[in-house]
Amino acid sequence: MIEYRPLRVALLGAGSVGAQVARLLTENKVELAARVGAELELVGIAVRDLSVERPGVPAHLLTTDAESLILGADIVIEVMGGIEPARTYILQALTSGADVITANKALLATHGPEIFDLAEQVGAQLYFEASVGGAIPIIRPLRESLAGDKVNRIMGIVNGTTNYILDRMNSTGASFESALQEAQDLGYAEADPTADIEAYDAAQKAAILASLAFHTEVPLEKVYREGITKITQAQMEAARRDGLVIKLLAICEKIAATETEPEGISVRVYPALIPLEHPLASVRGAFNAVFVEAEAAGQLMFYGAGAGGTQTASAILGDLVSAAKRHVAGGPGLADSVHAEFETLGIDRVFTQYQITIEVTDQPGVLAQVANIFSAHGVSIETVEQMARVRDGKRTGTATLEVGTHRATDAALSTVVEVLRATDAVEEITSVIRVEGV
Amino acid sequence: MIEYRPLRVALLGAGSVGAQVARLLTENKVELAARVGAELELVGIAVRDLSVERPGVPAHLLTTDAESLILGADIVIEVMGGIEPARTYILQALTSGADVITANKALLATHGPEIFDLAEQVGAQLYFEASVGGAIPIIRPLRESLAGDKVNRIMGIVNGTTNYILDRMNSTGASFESALQEAQDLGYAEADPTADIEAYDAAQKAAILASLAFHTEVPLEKVYREGITKITQAQMEAARRDGLVIKLLAICEKIAATETEPEGISVRVYPALIPLEHPLASVRGAFNAVFVEAEAAGQLMFYGAGAGGTQTASAILGDLVSAAKRHVAGGPGLADSVHAEFETLGIDRVFTQYQITIEVTDQPGVLAQVANIFSAHGVSIETVEQMARVRDGKRTGTATLEVGTHRATDAALSTVVEVLRATDAVEEITSVIRVEGV
Repeated sequence: MIEYRPLRVALLGAGSVGAQVARLLTENKVELAARVGAELELVGIAVRDLSVERPGVPAHLLTTDAESLILGADIVIEVMGGIEPARTYILQALTSGADVITANKALLATHGPEIFDLAEQVGAQLYFEASVGGAIPIIRPLRESLAGDKVNRIMGIVNGTTNYILDRMNSTGASFESALQEAQDLGYAEADPTADIEAYDAAQKAAILASLAFHTEVPLEKVYREGITKITQAQMEAARRDGLVIKLLAICEKIAATETEPEGISVRVYPALIPLEHPLASVRGAFNAVFVEAEAAGQLMFYGAGAGGTQTASAILGDLVSAAKRHVAGGPGLADSVHAEFETLGIDRVFTQYQITIEVTDQPGVLAQVANIFSAHGVSIETVEQMARVRDGKRTGTATLEVGTHRATDAALSTVVEVLRATDAVEEITSVIRVEGV
Repeated sequence: MIEYRPLRVALLGAGSVGAQVARLLTENKVELAARVGAELELVGIAVRDLSVERPGVPAHLLTTDAESLILGADIVIEVMGGIEPARTYILQALTSGADVITANKALLATHGPEIFDLAEQVGAQLYFEASVGGAIPIIRPLRESLAGDKVNRIMGIVNGTTNYILDRMNSTGASFESALQEAQDLGYAEADPTADIEAYDAAQKAAILASLAFHTEVPLEKVYREGITKITQAQMEAARRDGLVIKLLAICEKIAATETEPEGISVRVYPALIPLEHPLASVRGAFNAVFVEAEAAGQLMFYGAGAGGTQTASAILGDLVSAAKRHVAGGPGLADSVHAEFETLGIDRVFTQYQITIEVTDQPGVLAQVANIFSAHGVSIETVEQMARVRDGKRTGTATLEVGTHRATDAALSTVVEVLRATDAVEEITSVIRVEGV
């Protein structure tokens, strides 16, 4: 039943995602109208430059006058990316009373509070399912399905490019450099891959997930971040030998108070070892997955394509149907009406496990010396393996120690590594990597 | 901000799920009120028998007068299970204008249309996230997140008991009987395990998923159903040898029209072989997962605990927050406003692949004879393996043929099996199993 006036939808951006949104809006027009109870009319597509070739995008809808387009719209879809002018346009749209749908993780991670506050103030709605995990419904489950539960921990593979690179390194024995090159050749990685491989992209997504899971503001600069550029084939092999695999993980978790320190949350991104039996271990290629531990629901995982034009457009259209139904019938949106205030703590407060590979002088007493350094800093050793180095049938005088620790604060663990580095019997520390999901 | 009158919540049933709903409502009272904008007041818990011991359930809220409780409620949560009196109570609740939350898959699969129609007629809402997949958010993603997309296929592990049994058979070499016994000892399977092992439970869930995915009515009696009782350890071993694993799959998919037959949907549940690389293959123990293929979103998977009191209660509380927010702010619910009319087709129309193990007389010409039977029915063979049987170093006069087919209609494939059975050179067909996810 179509009982309502057509809803005016403005699209900002006509890149790979925008083009797919325009296509789906056109192709699924009848079904969408029936589902919403009103026609969805794409009134214009704002672009910077009209002269660019855009195959498949209806040329008569293109305009460079984004501001006029926004002022006449009921719902604004922002898929331009970047901070400006996206931020200004979204603020304008909300001010004019339009609901806004955005895939812009960078903007939400840096200017989220400003945008959320304005939306709440004017009673407009902000939808952003496409900002994390592409087509994977993760934002809505966190905002709605788990609204009566308490999230304790999120562990996500939220960057497809780095998952592809690590997966190739693991399955083909490729070096980081050649796996990156392959990802670039396939179009998974950009010419400048910094945002992916240094985990800036994953850090933005982690900030968004943590802010939803814990109903709190998460300043992006407090998200701890390590990329994957230093991961070696030797680490990959060692992981396989131990029944583990290396994944770039975005982790959001609650940290309990200590005797001297307040409670808070930790939001961090780093490559870590996880057991092969963990559901995240089998996430292959460029796929994404978000693993959630909630108090009552237990373990959940959401898996799918984390990027791609049609996939991201699917998430945007789901948001569009929600926004449009709210226009037709009024009522509550998705925004949380409760805010907690958790401090985002530094990495030093996190409890984790390290796996450390050390080249030591192969002489009596070295193992005891190393073990003493761990215990002196309150770090308990779980596993230790010592292999004498042999070349041409003779011991070389050095040995390799692989030490796995029990859980300890990252502060204590990193101090141990520093002290080891300054120890005479230690020739080199060849690998330090955290272990998660055990 | 609490600005609204308290909302009166009635709970029908105080079993393992009901008790956890009551606990979470009490323990999370403050957070829930803040999130909803109104207090959620649990006004009563209807039970059949007041004399039963119910540790942890507030005794002063118990009543046997379900009807009075329902009449005074804004939101009714039904966790009694079974068809009657659950059906009558839900119809009463909707008639009186209350929103209803239910975990009752049997009721929805058999009386769904009656209940949905009444809800639509009176403008009340029906929420049922807990009916499929326990804590896993799957109903909401199908109703909302994918509302702008088109689902092509769903393949789910939706029964934890049978997944546990099959997983144990695969990982420990146990027989079906001893794996079932183990599941019963652990409380995963009931004393009468029929509903699980004969796939009645999975068939109900498949009907619900298909009705949401394809916006259509799915009569439960049209869901094709095969249980797992005939799965043998020999099939498990053969699967492992081929890089496959046997899972009980609930499959919902669109079937295109043929020259003579109309389009429709297929909804079916049976044990099938899937490749180890498929995301569903790594779903271990009593976990559930639903794999969705949508036109734009591509492949998605939702994973988690498919049963359990607290897990199911988490899903119910998510629904409760949605229902309560709608009471406070009005506006649209989750129900679809569009209905397609797809016929649920018989298994004969389904395209699938068979793997067939045959004991044949070990003499020249038998392989050709068998191959001719396949081709005479338009079934193309993909792989064939012939092993002569040897006992005490001598050929026994029989051979084992393992035939894997290409995709064909189930009608053609089952005819081939019938004809093989009636063939003199065929001594026995020891295994017939479908292959999915390749």
